[in-house]
Amino acid sequence: MQLGMIGLGKMGGNMARRLRRAGLQVVGYDHSGSEVESLAAESGLVAAESLQALVDKLDTPRVVWLMLPAGDITEANVRELQGLLQPGDVLVDGANSFYKDSMRRGELLAESGIHFIDAGVSGGVWGLDNGYALMVGGSDEAFAAVQPIIEALAPATDQGWIHAGPVGSGHFVKMIHNGIEYGMMQAYAEGFALMKGRDDFGLDLAAIAETWRHGSVVRSWLLDLTADVLAGDQHLEDVEPFVADSGEGRWTALESIEQGIPTPVMSLALMTRFASQGQQDYSSKLLAMMRNQFGGHAVRSAGD
Amino acid sequence: MQLGMIGLGKMGGNMARRLRRAGLQVVGYDHSGSEVESLAAESGLVAAESLQALVDKLDTPRVVWLMLPAGDITEANVRELQGLLQPGDVLVDGANSFYKDSMRRGELLAESGIHFIDAGVSGGVWGLDNGYALMVGGSDEAFAAVQPIIEALAPATDQGWIHAGPVGSGHFVKMIHNGIEYGMMQAYAEGFALMKGRDDFGLDLAAIAETWRHGSVVRSWLLDLTADVLAGDQHLEDVEPFVADSGEGRWTALESIEQGIPTPVMSLALMTRFASQGQQDYSSKLLAMMRNQFGGHAVRSAGD
Repeated sequence: MQLGMIGLGKMGGNMARRLRRAGLQVVGYDHSGSEVESLAAESGLVAAESLQALVDKLDTPRVVWLMLPAGDITEANVRELQGLLQPGDVLVDGANSFYKDSMRRGELLAESGIHFIDAGVSGGVWGLDNGYALMVGGSDEAFAAVQPIIEALAPATDQGWIHAGPVGSGHFVKMIHNGIEYGMMQAYAEGFALMKGRDDFGLDLAAIAETWRHGSVVRSWLLDLTADVLAGDQHLEDVEPFVADSGEGRWTALESIEQGIPTPVMSLALMTRFASQGQQDYSSKLLAMMRNQFGGHAVRSAGD
Repeated sequence: MQLGMIGLGKMGGNMARRLRRAGLQVVGYDHSGSEVESLAAESGLVAAESLQALVDKLDTPRVVWLMLPAGDITEANVRELQGLLQPGDVLVDGANSFYKDSMRRGELLAESGIHFIDAGVSGGVWGLDNGYALMVGGSDEAFAAVQPIIEALAPATDQGWIHAGPVGSGHFVKMIHNGIEYGMMQAYAEGFALMKGRDDFGLDLAAIAETWRHGSVVRSWLLDLTADVLAGDQHLEDVEPFVADSGEGRWTALESIEQGIPTPVMSLALMTRFASQGQQDYSSKLLAMMRNQFGGHAVRSAGD
């Protein structure tokens, strides 16, 4: 089994390593040529110096896996590969792409006879050793062509992957997965904040997290990671209270609105990240001024 | 090691079984005498026919563990036992009691020279085999007296239990634990609802939950349980959309207000349960009438 992997960063690089460990042939390309060379030397991956070279090094029908940032970069690569691939080839997008973009790309590539697979990949930097959870959308025919790759990336050949449905369904399920992740992370964070706030008990937050990992109802892999964080530093004084969001949370909130099905917790977890980014500041300023206006309450000046 | 266990229901009964398996002597009392007799026959627990009998059967200094519903029942038993126990005895409350009640009871019992321990217990009906997570508050002296019991109930002698701090801190940490649980459960439920709503993909929610259990970022024990539910029935047509709440979620929200530290997700998860209980209906009726008033929009009559 052979595939081309485009994008050899944190995710793509480790996925290539895991596929090499499983004995698959991997032709790799990355915009950083040095990344490709070092991975080739380490893992026996075949380095390609361009998309064209990668395509040329693969036997037909080809399987090419994109592991690039979602959005413009993935879009540009899909369009370039549409010109390089042949009918019957399979193009897989493993990024956290918006599922409606994937549906559109599936239709676009179908015009050239190229199969499209959208694969949501979970597991982060731990996937190399633990395996990745894979949520895959595409036709039965295209899925059959990539199934050996999916099975090699997953924690076990019969575990942790699903052919969810047609093109788009893989990224849809991954989007929901990440939306749930937003809510879970926020719940843990709020709980630890209340324990930190109750300082008269002298609680050891690291020890509590460690305790909860064993036998408690809230045990989870996210709690395992949280326990590691708190074991290293439970005061977090050097961490800025800024939480980025990466698209999946927003799309989940949009899906809720489109379907008219409420997702209060997932949506508010997203809004809370916006607030952490300073985007609640204007409304807070305005509220302070309103209180001043009707009650004469003091307003703090920004320079104080 | 010997203790008295009062309340032998779902939690207390299995905890007594686990303690008996570990070789501890257990004197048991329950308001249902038949429950005590069958547990005695099964596990070798010593049956007591009253609180007085239970106290009489224990050597001093005694350890008595209450595993009763929080609130009035626990309060009544604490007060009765205050009259029956002696200075140096230890009374443990393993219920999901409000931590401020525990602090008050600790002070009350201290007047009689009786030690009080508040022990938050997590693990549900699975604790018998997996062990329980225990979050314990109390003095060092009192904790030392119950430590062998704690170690026998926990998943392992050195895992899954914590002496969190002074009286009250055990139930405080358990309260936060349950508040987090509210948020996590709500996040999963919302995500699966959006997948169910997207019916054009023909998603198999049971298969998706099973996939996520392996290698995904959202894997957890609550997801394991959710996968079991969905494997049995993913349509849930026979389940009424009513979610009870049991006190811990409300206390966590009150703690947030008392500390002035926001817990949007945990609080909204609680509010969402209130809505499921029909307590949002009046505001929904009023909103429907307001829309009718300013826009002439149709209002559905309750009998339609």
